[in-house]
Amino acid sequence: MLSSYIESNKERFLSELLDLIRVPSVSTLPEHKPDVDRAAAMVARRLGEAGLENVEIISTSRHPLVYADWLHAPGKPTVLCYGHYDVQPADPLDLWTSPPFEPTIRDGNIYGRGACDDKGQMYMHVKALESLRAVNGRLPVNVKVLIEGEEEVGGESIAKYVPANQDKLQADVALVSDTALYADGLPTLCVGLRGLIYLEVVAHGPSRDLHSGLYGGAAPNAVFGLAQLLAKAKDADGRILIPGIYADVEEPAAAEIASWKRLPFDEAEFLANEVGSPRLTGEPDRMILERVWSRPTFEVHGIGGGFTGAGSKTVIPAEAIAKVSFRLVPRQDPGKVIALFEDWVAKNTPPGIRARVRVLNGGPGIVVNPDHPAIAAAAAAFQEVMGKPTVFIRSGGSVPIVGDFATHLGIPTVMMGLGLPDDRLHSPNEKFKLANFYTGIMTIARFLERYGGGS
Amino acid sequence: MLSSYIESNKERFLSELLDLIRVPSVSTLPEHKPDVDRAAAMVARRLGEAGLENVEIISTSRHPLVYADWLHAPGKPTVLCYGHYDVQPADPLDLWTSPPFEPTIRDGNIYGRGACDDKGQMYMHVKALESLRAVNGRLPVNVKVLIEGEEEVGGESIAKYVPANQDKLQADVALVSDTALYADGLPTLCVGLRGLIYLEVVAHGPSRDLHSGLYGGAAPNAVFGLAQLLAKAKDADGRILIPGIYADVEEPAAAEIASWKRLPFDEAEFLANEVGSPRLTGEPDRMILERVWSRPTFEVHGIGGGFTGAGSKTVIPAEAIAKVSFRLVPRQDPGKVIALFEDWVAKNTPPGIRARVRVLNGGPGIVVNPDHPAIAAAAAAFQEVMGKPTVFIRSGGSVPIVGDFATHLGIPTVMMGLGLPDDRLHSPNEKFKLANFYTGIMTIARFLERYGGGS
Repeated sequence: MLSSYIESNKERFLSELLDLIRVPSVSTLPEHKPDVDRAAAMVARRLGEAGLENVEIISTSRHPLVYADWLHAPGKPTVLCYGHYDVQPADPLDLWTSPPFEPTIRDGNIYGRGACDDKGQMYMHVKALESLRAVNGRLPVNVKVLIEGEEEVGGESIAKYVPANQDKLQADVALVSDTALYADGLPTLCVGLRGLIYLEVVAHGPSRDLHSGLYGGAAPNAVFGLAQLLAKAKDADGRILIPGIYADVEEPAAAEIASWKRLPFDEAEFLANEVGSPRLTGEPDRMILERVWSRPTFEVHGIGGGFTGAGSKTVIPAEAIAKVSFRLVPRQDPGKVIALFEDWVAKNTPPGIRARVRVLNGGPGIVVNPDHPAIAAAAAAFQEVMGKPTVFIRSGGSVPIVGDFATHLGIPTVMMGLGLPDDRLHSPNEKFKLANFYTGIMTIARFLERYGGGS
Repeated sequence: MLSSYIESNKERFLSELLDLIRVPSVSTLPEHKPDVDRAAAMVARRLGEAGLENVEIISTSRHPLVYADWLHAPGKPTVLCYGHYDVQPADPLDLWTSPPFEPTIRDGNIYGRGACDDKGQMYMHVKALESLRAVNGRLPVNVKVLIEGEEEVGGESIAKYVPANQDKLQADVALVSDTALYADGLPTLCVGLRGLIYLEVVAHGPSRDLHSGLYGGAAPNAVFGLAQLLAKAKDADGRILIPGIYADVEEPAAAEIASWKRLPFDEAEFLANEVGSPRLTGEPDRMILERVWSRPTFEVHGIGGGFTGAGSKTVIPAEAIAKVSFRLVPRQDPGKVIALFEDWVAKNTPPGIRARVRVLNGGPGIVVNPDHPAIAAAAAAFQEVMGKPTVFIRSGGSVPIVGDFATHLGIPTVMMGLGLPDDRLHSPNEKFKLANFYTGIMTIARFLERYGGGS
């Protein structure tokens, strides 16, 4: 039986996952390239051990893709399982209680970079497939697995690979576990994601750093000019002021908004325990879940320029740079938003400053129809395993691959994530609740059985 | 004769100066502490060799002061020679044509960090004193020399030493060579300086870096909040918007403004060759020389926060920091301006952000009476050596010690600098014109002779 197989292999499943987290596969940092390759090889080996066939490590111009399949269920639907083995950088290191790449179990959680996003969640797929094969000798559906190593850096290689391999990847539905439960214990399917455009803005003032005594008052300052430019992007509340930015925004259906209002959302708790600032910001006429799920954002991720070392250096900086992004909601076209932003930068750059925009990557927002049979099977499996009705939510995050699957393969995606809202993705002390790792393995296995027509 | 002594010792004077520039006495960087101490020892040795007496290396809580004197001219005035042996950091290193601490002669200039600011200029004093002693067997006035190693980090130790040693340092006038000729070949005395308040502003948003997908739209962003705060400090032209900031600003006399209008200032040349930005900024109703000499400024020297590495990291940053300053003009009180700024920060910090101000150092602006006998002697010496009438200008830079000499010793300062406007102080490829080094030695020697009553 499935549940007893999972129970009796728990220690090994965990031990394998910890091995994977120990590999610092930080995709954005060139010095971690060997680790990224090592993580890919480890994932490929585990897929083979789980009974998948045709295991391939596919070279790309940056980090490899891992592919595998099992296609011996004629007449049954095909599920394309997706995940990523790369992780975000771990800095600032001094804020981690235990080292990011020495995963540690504390209070029932796995602590480590990638514990939840996405090594732990991706590995639930691998162990669900292993468990089904071990218990039944076969899988209840046809399965293709595609795992990437560039999700945290924009996923350029998989974005090229999917449209170029439509036949190989053809499936009825995709399964992605890179989202969170709405609350611990509440079975949750995510049916909407925001898109993302990531950009750099570089500002130039004087041709070299100048002495602020000799030139201050007459020479433009690149850092101040960039601050002035960026500050104009939003009003004091957080409403984006770039003209046209809200033009194509699709409002959620009234029923969807109504269901969000029934979710156990506690604004005071969200502020105190998750955000930790004196108050929240954002569009005052929108409830918090709208702000983070169905409204576009403009965010500055980092800024640098001039002298920031110890002591006092009195320069007028020649150059400054900011990393910024837009989160997009369904119907917003990334190309159009980029053009709006470039036009706005050109018109709003302060006198004496030249500003340049560089687009790093981008993808649209997405919504999935909750009536699709795979979504129905997933909701039923979740309810069966967790004992509560499944809720349908959105996520404000971006999983660009979901858009690529829709566009190039014409398939929807089941977003069945077992993370928790306080898992600290991208932050120090990222964690994944150990019980949810096992619940996820069981739920995914039961979803595949139900979707394959079993009871 | 003075001029032939200087001529026949040129090579040695230069060689000694280059030795001093080779010592990377960067006062703000703790790793250069041994170099700072080495520079102090070298200066002390050279003062002794020049015939000064009572040479002392005075320990402080940070970098040593160097003192020496020669007090054998009874009935003659006493001149307090001041300079600094510390330098600004050299970064960004890749923009230097030759390494900052391997001084090189090219096209008649000495290139190196500190070549002009202030090692080269300070060393003119030492060699002028040596030359007078060598030629005349004595000095024409009493001389005290006080050289510090913290000018580039706020000069805290000398600011304590001067009021605590008023008797020891008593003099009739101070001599400082840390300013520039208005134009090459134009003898120039600086009779006004701006003051400086250097501060850090630290902004806090969420209690940790947050995932911009999951929290974007509701969580405040420390980098964006700091940019919004700073942007409000000035309007698009560059007028400071902090209430009360212009209240105590003293307008220059009409005659002084009229003399500035006669200076060979070429705005197009200043823009193209010195600043190098698309256009200048600043108060539109003020001429450029007013903007940089007699108007207060608010400047952002550096900013940092969030992720600025390679690639894309999607965080809402928890913290951001900016280094800022005010340049002050005569009659503005530093304490009052700090209070105005702190009040403005408290009132203008965006919702959800906490901002904190830390004062690193501060000192007032200063003007000197051009009718003082020492100023008159200096102007005459300049005209004699350079063959043109001396012009009186101000500098927008800050030499806090001039204010301390006025406050605690009750003496004015002759600011006789031989730098040039394009010497790139604080920037890569700092230089000092070699001919001006020798002209400076001769001019200072002749000033001391004239001030001592000689012809």
